[in-house]
Amino acid sequence: MRLARFRTGTGARGFGVVESDEVVRLDHRVATFEALLADPVAPRPDDPRLPRIDVAWEPPMGDHPKVVCVGFNYAAHATESDRGPAEPPARPTLFSRFADSLVGAGTPVIRPAGEDTLDWEGEVALVVGTAGRRITATDAWAHVAGVTCMAENSVRDWQLHSTQATAGKNWHGSGALGPWLTTADTVGPGPLRVTTRLNGEVVQDDTTDHLTFAFADLIAYVSAFTPLAPGDVIATGTPQGIGLRRDPPRFLRPGDDLEVEVSGVGILRHGVIDESVVAAAPDLAEVTS
Amino acid sequence: MRLARFRTGTGARGFGVVESDEVVRLDHRVATFEALLADPVAPRPDDPRLPRIDVAWEPPMGDHPKVVCVGFNYAAHATESDRGPAEPPARPTLFSRFADSLVGAGTPVIRPAGEDTLDWEGEVALVVGTAGRRITATDAWAHVAGVTCMAENSVRDWQLHSTQATAGKNWHGSGALGPWLTTADTVGPGPLRVTTRLNGEVVQDDTTDHLTFAFADLIAYVSAFTPLAPGDVIATGTPQGIGLRRDPPRFLRPGDDLEVEVSGVGILRHGVIDESVVAAAPDLAEVTS
Repeated sequence: MRLARFRTGTGARGFGVVESDEVVRLDHRVATFEALLADPVAPRPDDPRLPRIDVAWEPPMGDHPKVVCVGFNYAAHATESDRGPAEPPARPTLFSRFADSLVGAGTPVIRPAGEDTLDWEGEVALVVGTAGRRITATDAWAHVAGVTCMAENSVRDWQLHSTQATAGKNWHGSGALGPWLTTADTVGPGPLRVTTRLNGEVVQDDTTDHLTFAFADLIAYVSAFTPLAPGDVIATGTPQGIGLRRDPPRFLRPGDDLEVEVSGVGILRHGVIDESVVAAAPDLAEVTS
Repeated sequence: MRLARFRTGTGARGFGVVESDEVVRLDHRVATFEALLADPVAPRPDDPRLPRIDVAWEPPMGDHPKVVCVGFNYAAHATESDRGPAEPPARPTLFSRFADSLVGAGTPVIRPAGEDTLDWEGEVALVVGTAGRRITATDAWAHVAGVTCMAENSVRDWQLHSTQATAGKNWHGSGALGPWLTTADTVGPGPLRVTTRLNGEVVQDDTTDHLTFAFADLIAYVSAFTPLAPGDVIATGTPQGIGLRRDPPRFLRPGDDLEVEVSGVGILRHGVIDESVVAAAPDLAEVTS
């Protein structure tokens, strides 16, 4: 089952289940998207339906989620980033993103005005369904509502301003999540394949059996220090192949088309718009595909 | 004027203005605490009043705030942390905290079970009053609702698990904020003095004219990449004198009494409780002073 959040043509927010070319609305009988994640319900014949093409996706996460991301979680990416792999690290490298740093699928991400180092990071992201603290690795999968695709895009110059990645990871509207989450029972714990395509060219391609810290390890580690709740997101790291490490480096620019595909889940696709254009014409930052 | 959030004896949440020994409730005529921060109103004689001793402070911030913190912002602390001062850094070192990592004044912070490296970090914190993006340093102070005290406590072992401080900075209930914010017009932009006392002994003591990045610089830098909104918090860094750098190191433990005083604002005071005790008797994590 695929669970999604969206806006309709009138700008109203809704959520429901994606079935082939339709979105089945459940927001008339489930209080919140978080409640749906905690306790998914199946569509009924009398639920309202919308053509998929008529909705604008929003990130399939809670209203006020914790978004925890992991760096250098594929050894080959750690190597390209000069962070390994003398030996694998003992603990995950974590940072967090503010929710408004992410847009839904089909909405262009915003390249900061005057900054040309917006880089792609295709990732598998987990969406929490069952609240928990100090979740054991054994129990971890039972806390996952589902799996989605993330473009965990980063403004490299700002990421490297200091030892902490925060500033480069939190540019408003710079990353994307979606288009939906595929429920855990459908997609299974993997291994999953994540593939990033820039204008159709594969730039990242790896499988989650190569993660240094597996899904369950990440959930256990994060929930040791902070409670997880329905709608929280854990991004599991990006594979080798970021633009910064190409020769010459290649960064995202207006006109680019980025796709992040996760096997068994779907494809997150987004364009790129410059902040100066958004400032001049805010409507252009709305859905383009 | 001092603006505060609190719970009453019945557990109801409220907010208002603190005047000498009373709290004047404003939640019956201002929609949200964020709205009060954006547009403070003066108490009227007919507003309900409570004795201060009858309320439990909550952190004086928004319901879903961005909490952005700055590391190594006093040169002497950077030096004690082996991060300087060959020359001052060009950009602030930022990390963020989840809102639930902070408790209100008078509530004991939680020392993680099995971890004995919970360390103090007294700080001056700014609470945003006027929303903005790409705020200039010149305009920055006009976006500040007020100033409060933060115990930006950190679990050092977890902070040092990787290059990113996230895990050590986000333990549930490990830090504190409050007891109130003193409005910007009352406290002024400083210099302010921040003093941390452990069981009455001064352990940190410095003034904000020694900040590497001043209040206005921080607001400009942070708002360059992320929109700020009423109720967001910017913690401005801790002075020299953390427990990790004492010889031998000294960490927070049950029975300790920590005070963070900011001149012109007030004193944030909290005790320490072990997580294992909270788990056994959750009521003990409630207000003790």
